[in-house]
Amino acid sequence: MFTLYFTPGTCALASHIALVDAGAEHALRRIDFSKSEQRSPDYLAINPKGRVPALVTPRGVLTETPAMLAFIAQSFPKAGLAPLDDPFAFAEIQSFNAYLCATVHVAHAHRMRGHRWADDPAAIAAMQKKVPQSVGECFDLIERQMLKGPWVMGESYTIADPYLFTLSGWLEADGIDQLRIPKVMEHRDRMQERPAVKQALASEKAA
Amino acid sequence: MFTLYFTPGTCALASHIALVDAGAEHALRRIDFSKSEQRSPDYLAINPKGRVPALVTPRGVLTETPAMLAFIAQSFPKAGLAPLDDPFAFAEIQSFNAYLCATVHVAHAHRMRGHRWADDPAAIAAMQKKVPQSVGECFDLIERQMLKGPWVMGESYTIADPYLFTLSGWLEADGIDQLRIPKVMEHRDRMQERPAVKQALASEKAA
Repeated sequence: MFTLYFTPGTCALASHIALVDAGAEHALRRIDFSKSEQRSPDYLAINPKGRVPALVTPRGVLTETPAMLAFIAQSFPKAGLAPLDDPFAFAEIQSFNAYLCATVHVAHAHRMRGHRWADDPAAIAAMQKKVPQSVGECFDLIERQMLKGPWVMGESYTIADPYLFTLSGWLEADGIDQLRIPKVMEHRDRMQERPAVKQALASEKAA
Repeated sequence: MFTLYFTPGTCALASHIALVDAGAEHALRRIDFSKSEQRSPDYLAINPKGRVPALVTPRGVLTETPAMLAFIAQSFPKAGLAPLDDPFAFAEIQSFNAYLCATVHVAHAHRMRGHRWADDPAAIAAMQKKVPQSVGECFDLIERQMLKGPWVMGESYTIADPYLFTLSGWLEADGIDQLRIPKVMEHRDRMQERPAVKQALASEKAA
């Protein structure tokens, strides 16, 4: 039994979908950013980083989406969410997920979380201004070079798919022209048809 | 046989040390940022992201340090660089490495690479100004909560160690007071005594 600490609209959705894909028994705990619950002593005792997601497992707490996704794939091998016996193929998925985590999500975060990297309001505004360009360039690279189709890694659905789906849910708010990334948009549509995705989205609304 | 594309002083060092730790046969190819070689057509054909590191393997090219480190550990299981049969313990390492990649390295990058996220010179200067604080807070968390000692994960040396060593090599330039992070500094000293680290640093100088 796992417990996923999440906030709707965040990257926690990727691990949530993967838990459903894996058939992993799990509970949801919603963290309310509007009440700064991520900074509450109770939550900081679970995740000292003060962010979501966090996955409470019988062995301890895990954070960081790429690590959580690989953990879910490895813990539920029958779900077939990653090529676990092929280090190179597994690394290709991990490389994709690391790019989403450290480059795409980071570029996106400069729209809402600029205060992490500068204090001056004019600097924070300058960061916001560049998000359509910086995030757009990331998705151009995904479109041209990385997304094989129909799934990220080609014919096999993997833990890269719910993560890309999660981040491509932010495209409109980041001001990205969807016409330039048709494969990404098709992937997003394809994901939305999956029962696991529908279930995860409905559960987040209800939680 | 692998080929590692690297630049001295970058996070490529982490994978380089791990290759030496693993006893993996490898060649080095130096990419000269002062000549913008990372943007040359030849290099972009290898790594369209235009960054280092990139690891050329017989199966294809890998990028992103956390993915490369896990690949090296899984490809050379006898080297014992990660608990490969324990998904939770493996995920703890991956979580640490994802934090280094997506939070610590990103905070650091605002000192030299602010142009990725803003165009205004005043905004770039404002980002540089906050680096001692933002990187310092990351290392405070590593010091207090994450680095078990003597190695990152405790008694066992893993692929988390060369990565932390690589990023802790940037502390002076980022303006971090070393007195506040004694465990991190001891870890750095401990790493510098390892033959694999000495060999990797010497090879980067000679390449």
